[in-house]
Amino acid sequence: METNTTICAIATSPGNGAIAVIRLSGKDAVSITDKLFRSPSDKKLYKQLPNTIHFGSIYFKNKLIDEVLISLFKAPHSYTGEDVVEISCHGSIFIQQQNLQSLTESDAVLAQPGEFTLRAFMNGKMDLSQAEGVADLIASESDAAHKMAMNQMRGGFSLEIGKLRSQLLNLCSLLELELDFSEEDVEFANRTDLKHLVNEIEHVIKHLTDSFLLGNVIKTGVPVAIVGKPNVGKSTLLNTLLQEEKALVSEIAGTTRDSIEDVINIKGIRFRFIDTAGIRHTTDTIESLGIERTFSKISLASVILLIADAVCSRDEIQRQIEELKLTSDQHLIVVINKIDLYNKTEVEQRLGGSNKLNSYPVLFLSAKHHLYTDQLHELLLDTVQSQALQTSDVVVSNTRHYEALKNALEASNRASAGLETGLPSDLIAQDIREILFYLGQITGEITTDEILGNIFKNFCIGK
Amino acid sequence: METNTTICAIATSPGNGAIAVIRLSGKDAVSITDKLFRSPSDKKLYKQLPNTIHFGSIYFKNKLIDEVLISLFKAPHSYTGEDVVEISCHGSIFIQQQNLQSLTESDAVLAQPGEFTLRAFMNGKMDLSQAEGVADLIASESDAAHKMAMNQMRGGFSLEIGKLRSQLLNLCSLLELELDFSEEDVEFANRTDLKHLVNEIEHVIKHLTDSFLLGNVIKTGVPVAIVGKPNVGKSTLLNTLLQEEKALVSEIAGTTRDSIEDVINIKGIRFRFIDTAGIRHTTDTIESLGIERTFSKISLASVILLIADAVCSRDEIQRQIEELKLTSDQHLIVVINKIDLYNKTEVEQRLGGSNKLNSYPVLFLSAKHHLYTDQLHELLLDTVQSQALQTSDVVVSNTRHYEALKNALEASNRASAGLETGLPSDLIAQDIREILFYLGQITGEITTDEILGNIFKNFCIGK
Repeated sequence: METNTTICAIATSPGNGAIAVIRLSGKDAVSITDKLFRSPSDKKLYKQLPNTIHFGSIYFKNKLIDEVLISLFKAPHSYTGEDVVEISCHGSIFIQQQNLQSLTESDAVLAQPGEFTLRAFMNGKMDLSQAEGVADLIASESDAAHKMAMNQMRGGFSLEIGKLRSQLLNLCSLLELELDFSEEDVEFANRTDLKHLVNEIEHVIKHLTDSFLLGNVIKTGVPVAIVGKPNVGKSTLLNTLLQEEKALVSEIAGTTRDSIEDVINIKGIRFRFIDTAGIRHTTDTIESLGIERTFSKISLASVILLIADAVCSRDEIQRQIEELKLTSDQHLIVVINKIDLYNKTEVEQRLGGSNKLNSYPVLFLSAKHHLYTDQLHELLLDTVQSQALQTSDVVVSNTRHYEALKNALEASNRASAGLETGLPSDLIAQDIREILFYLGQITGEITTDEILGNIFKNFCIGK
Repeated sequence: METNTTICAIATSPGNGAIAVIRLSGKDAVSITDKLFRSPSDKKLYKQLPNTIHFGSIYFKNKLIDEVLISLFKAPHSYTGEDVVEISCHGSIFIQQQNLQSLTESDAVLAQPGEFTLRAFMNGKMDLSQAEGVADLIASESDAAHKMAMNQMRGGFSLEIGKLRSQLLNLCSLLELELDFSEEDVEFANRTDLKHLVNEIEHVIKHLTDSFLLGNVIKTGVPVAIVGKPNVGKSTLLNTLLQEEKALVSEIAGTTRDSIEDVINIKGIRFRFIDTAGIRHTTDTIESLGIERTFSKISLASVILLIADAVCSRDEIQRQIEELKLTSDQHLIVVINKIDLYNKTEVEQRLGGSNKLNSYPVLFLSAKHHLYTDQLHELLLDTVQSQALQTSDVVVSNTRHYEALKNALEASNRASAGLETGLPSDLIAQDIREILFYLGQITGEITTDEILGNIFKNFCIGK
């Protein structure tokens, strides 16, 4: 890991703006800038106090490049822990590049994606899980994702892992002490206390791995499939949901999205809608293929909205539910559409007079006339246990953390079983060390260049 | 013009980045930020020194929005001349909007396009021509445009206009003094000196209006039409020019353009290539229409590249030149293509043995084999009198300035003629005041809300 260099990059969004910020970090950050910078009062940056701002011009080879503001940060009190200079320059792409080029031709090197944050990690300014929180924060597109990433960046998750690790280290040292005195057959670690502690740790790790389901949907959006026979109003319902959402987001001017058509943000949770072709029995080979694809899409969804017409019979709906072949972790909501055309009480009674059907929630609405659609919002939110977000619970959202936690859980299961069956201390200590190893991977106490490379390559440049 | 408010806007390019900057300006900029900002040491921003940076968090309604750096600027030592706060926040669009919303819900109002620069103008931090230079600088996409805009922003053009105005004011006061003593028939202003001075002013204004042709092409690119019979190699030539240019620009990573296919940047000057259909005589009505359109496009070009095959005769080329019906301010370059297939000396001799044809430059090249294409670069640069850019001459690039200068020129022509024919002082003074009026429009001594509105609406938001 090369950290003798001074790195530079444009840190603001690429494109034209009023201003842009170029960031430098490294031991020569100030001296490189001093070579290019001329202030009206001829002051030198290296003589200035940290956390101050200085107006002046960037000259390169005696050519005026730009008028800029320089922000100075001195090691270790900076984002990276190194000397950092931020150049606030005019925002045309052309000038941004001219400024950047002046720096790279003055011994600064272009930063790799995430290299500033990597240096922050290397210099102990944050642990690995916090660094990943930074990337998640920048990528966050909803309130829930934002909150989760912010908590992770500020060390909430690290704290939780840290607590586990210190308990485990304590345990491990007691067990290893026993090994030193193994000929004397003493037990420094009370086995009952030990079992209790391992169980507790197991419980916490299990809780964290369980939270990944929620964390992952918060980060990537909850996949929802809208299914049903042709002409039951699938598209109308989607449009209705989208319209209500569009009205909501348009309050915030300038929010742009790559594609809004299938993403709905309900109270800070993103729902990703998956298009499906209408399901019906057919002997046409090509149409069968389409329907097969529908079923494979359904299997990817964590929520399925089964839309049926209000004239549909209870038997027919039950048959359709069976055809979906749901797994136990998929949520189904039965939506009876076009209720505006019928007497709601009669339809309800015909379908069983309850708001459940085979234990699945049933909702009567009119997509066209926006009747009872807010109840659908509530039911959708229920599927993601949104109450978990109300608490300050730590939620795992990162696949890498999830894998490490699963490995830690397996090891703690082994340790727990070992204690139960009275395995020798050295074997249990081995399992405990393994838990420590996997937890250490999350926060970066244990890491490799490959792991670091994988994490930071997904960062944007300038971060 | 409302300046009691405190305005805010995202100043960096819209979109996701590592960081983004939100700018506030106005008397409540610091107090509004203080309401939302919490620093680890609980410090209040209003107690801090100007030009300092402070780390902390933005909280809105007790919800943590972001961790930020705050840059403080105090009136009058800021861009706008007011109190200014810049919030450097995390760069996701979502967080940018959350931060911005916290400000707008705390009594800051969203800035109009250019409103920060408008306030800088209102507070005497820059004149109108400098403000326009700021917009041009941000929009600049080439070295020449960048240099021109930077010169204007730093007041180079204003200085020139200022010199003219002070000479004129002096002249005007002498003439008006004569009016006070009109019954005594004295001449405080020596008529020979006066004529000399008016001629000099006329000359400078003429020089500035003349520079607009250059200034305009620097700003918008030189329109170049590539014309010629079908299959003479028009597209090959364009591709060759583009490839050479692409290799040049790709040295600067990340330079994105909306459409690169027809713009070539040669030594800092942009050339915009206009596609034309091949010209040939036809009786087909539809094809005739296409060729008509070609001719109307040719009339918009300031440079025409007439491409001909090396087997073409001198007579044929001359006939083609005549058909182009060029105006006196259009430049023609005759390009004899496919020279790789023939003996160059023989072709040259057959076409007259000179590098001119009807006084137009002739160039022999092979577009396909990239032979002599660099000579074409040189000839293209010659057409824009690029030497003017080597000097530190002031170049007019703004249509509004050009119109004002043309009006000033007319008035100075009248003043000059009036002095020649011995018109009474009061009539001459009237013309001089008119010149002053038009020059005052450029720098904004004389302005209206409408003029200001027109200028600043074209700025980007956040500037």
